[in-house]
Amino acid sequence: MARALPQGLVCLLDHEQHAQTQLPEAVWAYFNGGAAEEVTLRANAKAWQRLELLPRVLRPLAGGHTRVQLLGRTLAHPIMVAPMAHQGLAHPHGERATALAAAALGAGLVFSTQASVRLEDVARTYLPDADRGPLWFQLYAQPDRSFTRELVQRAASAGYEALVLTIDAPVQGVRDRERRAGFHTSAGVSAVNLVGMIPPTPKPLEPGQSALFDGLLKHAPTWDDVAWLRSITHLPVLLKGITHPDDAVQAVRCGAAGVIVSNHGGRTLDTVPATARLLPRVVQAVQGDVPVLVDGGIRRGTDVLKAVALGASAVLVGRPILHGLTNAGATGVAHVLRLLRDELEIAMALTGCRTLADAQQTLA
Amino acid sequence: MARALPQGLVCLLDHEQHAQTQLPEAVWAYFNGGAAEEVTLRANAKAWQRLELLPRVLRPLAGGHTRVQLLGRTLAHPIMVAPMAHQGLAHPHGERATALAAAALGAGLVFSTQASVRLEDVARTYLPDADRGPLWFQLYAQPDRSFTRELVQRAASAGYEALVLTIDAPVQGVRDRERRAGFHTSAGVSAVNLVGMIPPTPKPLEPGQSALFDGLLKHAPTWDDVAWLRSITHLPVLLKGITHPDDAVQAVRCGAAGVIVSNHGGRTLDTVPATARLLPRVVQAVQGDVPVLVDGGIRRGTDVLKAVALGASAVLVGRPILHGLTNAGATGVAHVLRLLRDELEIAMALTGCRTLADAQQTLA
Amino acid sequence: MARALPQGLVCLLDHEQHAQTQLPEAVWAYFNGGAAEEVTLRANAKAWQRLELLPRVLRPLAGGHTRVQLLGRTLAHPIMVAPMAHQGLAHPHGERATALAAAALGAGLVFSTQASVRLEDVARTYLPDADRGPLWFQLYAQPDRSFTRELVQRAASAGYEALVLTIDAPVQGVRDRERRAGFHTSAGVSAVNLVGMIPPTPKPLEPGQSALFDGLLKHAPTWDDVAWLRSITHLPVLLKGITHPDDAVQAVRCGAAGVIVSNHGGRTLDTVPATARLLPRVVQAVQGDVPVLVDGGIRRGTDVLKAVALGASAVLVGRPILHGLTNAGATGVAHVLRLLRDELEIAMALTGCRTLADAQQTLA
Amino acid sequence: MARALPQGLVCLLDHEQHAQTQLPEAVWAYFNGGAAEEVTLRANAKAWQRLELLPRVLRPLAGGHTRVQLLGRTLAHPIMVAPMAHQGLAHPHGERATALAAAALGAGLVFSTQASVRLEDVARTYLPDADRGPLWFQLYAQPDRSFTRELVQRAASAGYEALVLTIDAPVQGVRDRERRAGFHTSAGVSAVNLVGMIPPTPKPLEPGQSALFDGLLKHAPTWDDVAWLRSITHLPVLLKGITHPDDAVQAVRCGAAGVIVSNHGGRTLDTVPATARLLPRVVQAVQGDVPVLVDGGIRRGTDVLKAVALGASAVLVGRPILHGLTNAGATGVAHVLRLLRDELEIAMALTGCRTLADAQQTLA
Repeated sequence: MARALPQGLVCLLDHEQHAQTQLPEAVWAYFNGGAAEEVTLRANAKAWQRLELLPRVLRPLAGGHTRVQLLGRTLAHPIMVAPMAHQGLAHPHGERATALAAAALGAGLVFSTQASVRLEDVARTYLPDADRGPLWFQLYAQPDRSFTRELVQRAASAGYEALVLTIDAPVQGVRDRERRAGFHTSAGVSAVNLVGMIPPTPKPLEPGQSALFDGLLKHAPTWDDVAWLRSITHLPVLLKGITHPDDAVQAVRCGAAGVIVSNHGGRTLDTVPATARLLPRVVQAVQGDVPVLVDGGIRRGTDVLKAVALGASAVLVGRPILHGLTNAGATGVAHVLRLLRDELEIAMALTGCRTLADAQQTLA
Repeated sequence: MARALPQGLVCLLDHEQHAQTQLPEAVWAYFNGGAAEEVTLRANAKAWQRLELLPRVLRPLAGGHTRVQLLGRTLAHPIMVAPMAHQGLAHPHGERATALAAAALGAGLVFSTQASVRLEDVARTYLPDADRGPLWFQLYAQPDRSFTRELVQRAASAGYEALVLTIDAPVQGVRDRERRAGFHTSAGVSAVNLVGMIPPTPKPLEPGQSALFDGLLKHAPTWDDVAWLRSITHLPVLLKGITHPDDAVQAVRCGAAGVIVSNHGGRTLDTVPATARLLPRVVQAVQGDVPVLVDGGIRRGTDVLKAVALGASAVLVGRPILHGLTNAGATGVAHVLRLLRDELEIAMALTGCRTLADAQQTLA
Repeated sequence: MARALPQGLVCLLDHEQHAQTQLPEAVWAYFNGGAAEEVTLRANAKAWQRLELLPRVLRPLAGGHTRVQLLGRTLAHPIMVAPMAHQGLAHPHGERATALAAAALGAGLVFSTQASVRLEDVARTYLPDADRGPLWFQLYAQPDRSFTRELVQRAASAGYEALVLTIDAPVQGVRDRERRAGFHTSAGVSAVNLVGMIPPTPKPLEPGQSALFDGLLKHAPTWDDVAWLRSITHLPVLLKGITHPDDAVQAVRCGAAGVIVSNHGGRTLDTVPATARLLPRVVQAVQGDVPVLVDGGIRRGTDVLKAVALGASAVLVGRPILHGLTNAGATGVAHVLRLLRDELEIAMALTGCRTLADAQQTLA
Repeated sequence: MARALPQGLVCLLDHEQHAQTQLPEAVWAYFNGGAAEEVTLRANAKAWQRLELLPRVLRPLAGGHTRVQLLGRTLAHPIMVAPMAHQGLAHPHGERATALAAAALGAGLVFSTQASVRLEDVARTYLPDADRGPLWFQLYAQPDRSFTRELVQRAASAGYEALVLTIDAPVQGVRDRERRAGFHTSAGVSAVNLVGMIPPTPKPLEPGQSALFDGLLKHAPTWDDVAWLRSITHLPVLLKGITHPDDAVQAVRCGAAGVIVSNHGGRTLDTVPATARLLPRVVQAVQGDVPVLVDGGIRRGTDVLKAVALGASAVLVGRPILHGLTNAGATGVAHVLRLLRDELEIAMALTGCRTLADAQQTLA
């Protein structure tokens, strides 16, 4: 149960390699796989790597730090934990272990609607830590608005500080690797926060109608749902899954408190550009009106620095957290976050950045 | 004989991989091989994959559909079956199985001159299905015009709705893989619709004359043959194998009812650009005067969406049909067409396209 | 001794693969290896492959042919045999077999100074064939001018029609593969046409002098040697090894009858651009004043067509000839030349070129 | 102890391959590894290879040479030995063997602060050779200025002709390969020239302070340290680790006698551009005010020629020296330097450069 941190893991990719040996193939396919040919999955990581850094030398660095401002708070560093479902499949301590480690390392946490523990339990684990970052609640708009309303109220009561509405997955992508491996969730790992939600009764299709367009997608969220969500809560609402600059502008217009540039880690639609390439266009479009965050393929401190250099206020890290969790529970997650933050400090020092405000000038 | 659909095939590439294990190497080389180094063969698939999609989010999607207009008909979706010879080598049910599946899935069918069953038989299988798409007849211009005329009349009588004249193969390409494997058609698989055609008597060559230029190519089709073909039939004539914009313009001028951008699946001339790159230039050249179709390397619903986004009215799918046919006869072909159409719907939903009229804006 | 043509060789690359199994590793390294990392060697072949062809369709092709004009003669096709040393290492029949096959296939022949048979013998083999192409003599300028003069006179007397002065190898390149393999010429294979040449007596070096610059390179050919060569013979002189447009212009100014764009098959200096990329710049520089030929990496009929499209009057083929020679003596060389010419005709037909004058429009 | 030069090593890459078989994995990881994914490490070598050479032909080459001018001296050739720590791990003769070979081959030597022998010993080995190049002393600015001053005085007294201040490593990079392999220096191999230096007493960190920024980096060198260094010595000071043109300009302004474009061989910050790409921008920025040198990935004589063509006065070679040293002590180092210089002469001859002043025109 309690797995000790294995020797010799010196970077996030080592964690990934080790985790693959620890998980059943189907669970691995679910966690690490992407849509279709996984073009976007690979592109995400590659694109950060391809951005080049041009160091500045001999600048005073004493007193430097990694702090950033986000939604009225000071964060110790810009690294946050992305929302991920079913963490109980990686380790029996699941989301609680992740929350414990994130809090200790000062990493913001985005809790997933599809977590396998109650949202209140994670809040109780995370919030008391003095060093903690922000705690946000990720939401899929549910067909049943009263259920959504109740969920939002629970999150607010439990102390969550913002809502993150995922908007890029009205339907699940063609996750072929996962389907080939025959993935299904295990006993004891289910979306406990969605218990009690009544799925809409499907109407029989008429000839020529599509099970997708005339079924599931009738309940897909629209801009109206964003407005409605804002109307029922005082919590700031961020939109996760923005890729088009025009949608970013529209998000600002609809009162979003921030946008998260994301292609869902390459898990929904394949051949979407890497987020490292989408980020600057979105940053330019929102013109500083709201913070822009980004996820997808962040594996190195240099990647974090580059994301900030391109205008991101913070980054979300997903799969590496699952790898750390798989390898050694809370200790593993803490190790992953520690490695990433240490690498970020080293990257700053080696590019001559005393603070992240200097990041922009480091891109070649 | 009746092969059940194997488990675990979740996309067209899975079908391809499985089919390779089911066929003799020489038949596989014939079906899947291309010309020379197969640069174009590989480029076709790669080029669709390289085109990037930029999703739009939060748009209303209910009531969406995949319908397109083509030559005065409404098609349930823009996926058609490309003409392919000798389907009896893939499965004993051959072209009939393909026709059965295509009709059921609403996929248009282009029947090959070199089919191993009579054109009337396939028409009888295909036409009665209420959901069927268009049925077209593919033609190689034969040296003997009276034979060609008779063939065209048979096709018209049998209910074929258009002619597709293949113009990019006046001579067979250097299909090295196939030659190395020693491919030859099997007993019982022959071009039955060409029975009775008398090949021209070859004249002895004079010194310095070329067996190719002064032999076979004396009967290669020219623009005059297109005009002649139009003069003997009321059926619309599409030209298949257009790659140069100027030839597309000439086709329109000669009264073609449509053009099909094709490099013959990389089977004739190697190092021709991928069709995904040729398509937009041809679309621009014809300026909407006639529909433009495309084939070559379409393996994903995202590829279909991209083709439509670039201006294609429909796409033709070849080898994947043979793979499905090999794997499970009509069931296999139906599965391939179903996967492709489902993926198309999912790609539309994930890019925010309610209909294919929205496709153009999805390209990054 | 007499090796029969192996079954299943359908293209030049098949010949290459087979030949590798037939030769001692050191000889293979000598024939097929290049300088240093072999960047240029690989780039040569790749560059032709990367050029794209854009077919034209439905054009009249009857009566087409591959004929070209070169130095006042009509060639059956633009494929010539490049000068290559020590062909006796590939097959006991060596240069005589090559000459026999080249003559029969109408391929021009450039005989190497470093051949292992007498230049008169090859002339006697080649010249009598009615279908033969041009016979040229390749020359390295020798330190001893009187020896060079005698060699040129022998060539003229024997019926050679032009001189090809190799100018890109004042010193041998760093042919690492060859040196690693420990290559040396075998007994019975030597440069018989250079017998009697007395190498210059080396002077002792002074301190700071270079064995290369103050030794071997004192006798390296210069533009003056070109002028001298022209002064001692009525034969046209072509310069082989031109890569820079300005040198091409200078060659024309010095009365060269033609230039051959070549990087010595990647055997001298590594990281020189592929000849397919150098050719158009040289063609543009000479403005049609003299014919431009090219070698390096030609393996396909499509490559020949592309070279002509870029302005080459003819192409020289080297290693593939050695492969054919290795595999089956004269029969093997003839097979290689036949394959290449057949592929050229097919490429012309499939791009709509009745003659090579149409080649230029085939490039995408 | 005395290892004979192995047979069959014909280029620097052969030396590398052989050396890998001779060293413990951890030492190999330390010598040959780079930071993180080693993107920059690979890019360095690749970038030289990608630059293309365009030979000029038929130019007079007699009397050519490789001499260059640097800081008031004439060098036999522009190849210098880069500073490298702990050479005793490669061969028991360590830095003394390197010095012996470098002096004999006329190669300048940059002695490392972290050498495992006393700086005076190497000076005594190197300086007496009549053919020797320049002897420079590489310096890391130490927290204790009085210690640095003493070190500089020792170097000056011992005959070192210039100081090379390394400025691109205020903190060690994430050298993952090395950490995975568990590298540590062996008994008997230590930085003997730093004996007696007292490390600064670390102050306890306050909450929110960074062990890196508020600890180690308080002593990182700044432009002020450059000024101070110049004030305490008459030796010219070169700055090593410049990548940004603006820092090069600043270096000139601060009185640097030269700049060395370097990314520390890809050992500090990953994803910095290859030095071959940085060099021309720095050369342009300094406008000839001071000499510009370069290191990183130089493996071929053609690389040296290209570096000079891009404006470098000399190049520094690092890892290949360690490979030669590993393989055969001083003989191995001499062989590596010999190969490189021979290749440089050959590259000059084959591009038509009589002297390195002609280099610039060789780039394609």
